[in-house]
Amino acid sequence: MQKVQALMSRTPEASILTGHAALRHMVDRALEESVRFPSGCPRRLADAIHYGLLGPGKRLRPRLVLMAADACGGNFHDALPAACAVEMVHAYSLIHDDLPAMDDDDLRRGRPTCHKVYGEALAILAGDALLARALEILATDVLPPSKAARCVAALARAAGPTQLVGGQADDLLGGTQRPSPADLEDIHRRKTGALFRVALRLGGWIADASAEQLDMLDTYGTKVGLAFQITDDLLDSVDSSAPDSAAGRAGNGPKPAGFPLMTGAEASRRRARELVQQACRALEAMGPRGTPFIALAREIAERRR
Amino acid sequence: MQKVQALMSRTPEASILTGHAALRHMVDRALEESVRFPSGCPRRLADAIHYGLLGPGKRLRPRLVLMAADACGGNFHDALPAACAVEMVHAYSLIHDDLPAMDDDDLRRGRPTCHKVYGEALAILAGDALLARALEILATDVLPPSKAARCVAALARAAGPTQLVGGQADDLLGGTQRPSPADLEDIHRRKTGALFRVALRLGGWIADASAEQLDMLDTYGTKVGLAFQITDDLLDSVDSSAPDSAAGRAGNGPKPAGFPLMTGAEASRRRARELVQQACRALEAMGPRGTPFIALAREIAERRR
Repeated sequence: MQKVQALMSRTPEASILTGHAALRHMVDRALEESVRFPSGCPRRLADAIHYGLLGPGKRLRPRLVLMAADACGGNFHDALPAACAVEMVHAYSLIHDDLPAMDDDDLRRGRPTCHKVYGEALAILAGDALLARALEILATDVLPPSKAARCVAALARAAGPTQLVGGQADDLLGGTQRPSPADLEDIHRRKTGALFRVALRLGGWIADASAEQLDMLDTYGTKVGLAFQITDDLLDSVDSSAPDSAAGRAGNGPKPAGFPLMTGAEASRRRARELVQQACRALEAMGPRGTPFIALAREIAERRR
Repeated sequence: MQKVQALMSRTPEASILTGHAALRHMVDRALEESVRFPSGCPRRLADAIHYGLLGPGKRLRPRLVLMAADACGGNFHDALPAACAVEMVHAYSLIHDDLPAMDDDDLRRGRPTCHKVYGEALAILAGDALLARALEILATDVLPPSKAARCVAALARAAGPTQLVGGQADDLLGGTQRPSPADLEDIHRRKTGALFRVALRLGGWIADASAEQLDMLDTYGTKVGLAFQITDDLLDSVDSSAPDSAAGRAGNGPKPAGFPLMTGAEASRRRARELVQQACRALEAMGPRGTPFIALAREIAERRR
């Protein structure tokens, strides 16, 4: 995180931030820039896009892009477009997942969901716009263009019918059927894991990482993605036992059985801790460069939303 | 269209097809290939994608890609991935536009719309999947990768918040307000024209067209796109005077005032003919290579759906 340290010493506001908070700050500024449309985008659509993208959030996935680039010898500046693109794909998927026809969620991170504020039509369009814009940014701002094409192919694939969208469809189609733990891991691997893994891969590619480094990042992404989802299920199961809580999701639609329902809360917590340990071990060979990833894995396992 | 002639003499089934029908045939085969998912894509989602993409259609936009590549000295094979990508973006936009929260259409080209058959959730996801897959194909299959990145940037931009999605948002937000003819042309330029123009540009780029050729194609695309939309409005106004007709759209949502409502049917027809003439004149310098474009412009102006 040498560059974060440098950033912190340069900007007064950043000097009080920790390394991860500084990354979040960088990402937020770049995200704002990436959805400035001087002309052509209707004002109300731009508002819906900003609402869905720029609200409170942990910026986990873009931080993974930046951390991977940094750990593999690249720099944050080159990796920022990819970081923004990954967060935009994440934001698009949340907006669409929350729609009445899908999970029918009224709240997201304690705020009304996008369609609650802007209506369903604009929420659908804001999601569409974010997906298109994400891939436009990647194609335009990652250099050289041959690297950009590789990044677009990987992110579009992760967002597409076999990964993110496919996982969401399986999740919905499962409906009231109780999936097996293996089914559930498969859905999570595609619905959450794919975006974690591609975030790390894009960061690695941008820094011209070695095959060995990319493998380490991939294992880390797989383990941390699953740990993230189990923690999410644990938090959901707490929320649903306290339905008046405004802290988390408040979905109206049928929720699939998560890990806690299947194996119990304690076993789920144990599994998440185990995965975080495996994730951290995967990066041992990176030495001190792996330190930020260990902190992030802990943040994921210990988060309260 | 020398290559179409060659194709026609090679394949017996094509020998009875005209040049444009042969192009449509090539596109249909390539589209089927482009949405084959051996694993990972849930069956029902794949069905919804196939329903939205592979149903009856004129394949105007992909034919424009192939024709532009051919006219600028390229070949159909190299242009097919871009042709598929443009049609997939078109299909995604129709699926989302038809949704109850948007135009609320029950019928499209005489068949029930995607959400009527597969439900809203899968229709939203099928649209999302088509957009992601379109850009993945472009990034993967256009060569060299530097050209792929340029094509992705242009198509993603045309599909994004300032063009296709922005035009649809303006169309919806206009609601009951009556737009001026200039407003309407601006909406059409973004909602329909952008995809026509980018289709021609991708074909041109793939064939390494000259700046002059690209300019001619761009003017042609602008004029033909507007003529297409005016003809569409004319057909809609006929449909809405015969609400039981199952031939065209049967939208339940508020429809914006089209050109016929604004200037009368006869003046609209005149304007469409004028635009087609201007489109054809723009390609005069291409000589015989411009012939297929003239036939296509006429097909657009004279179509009955």
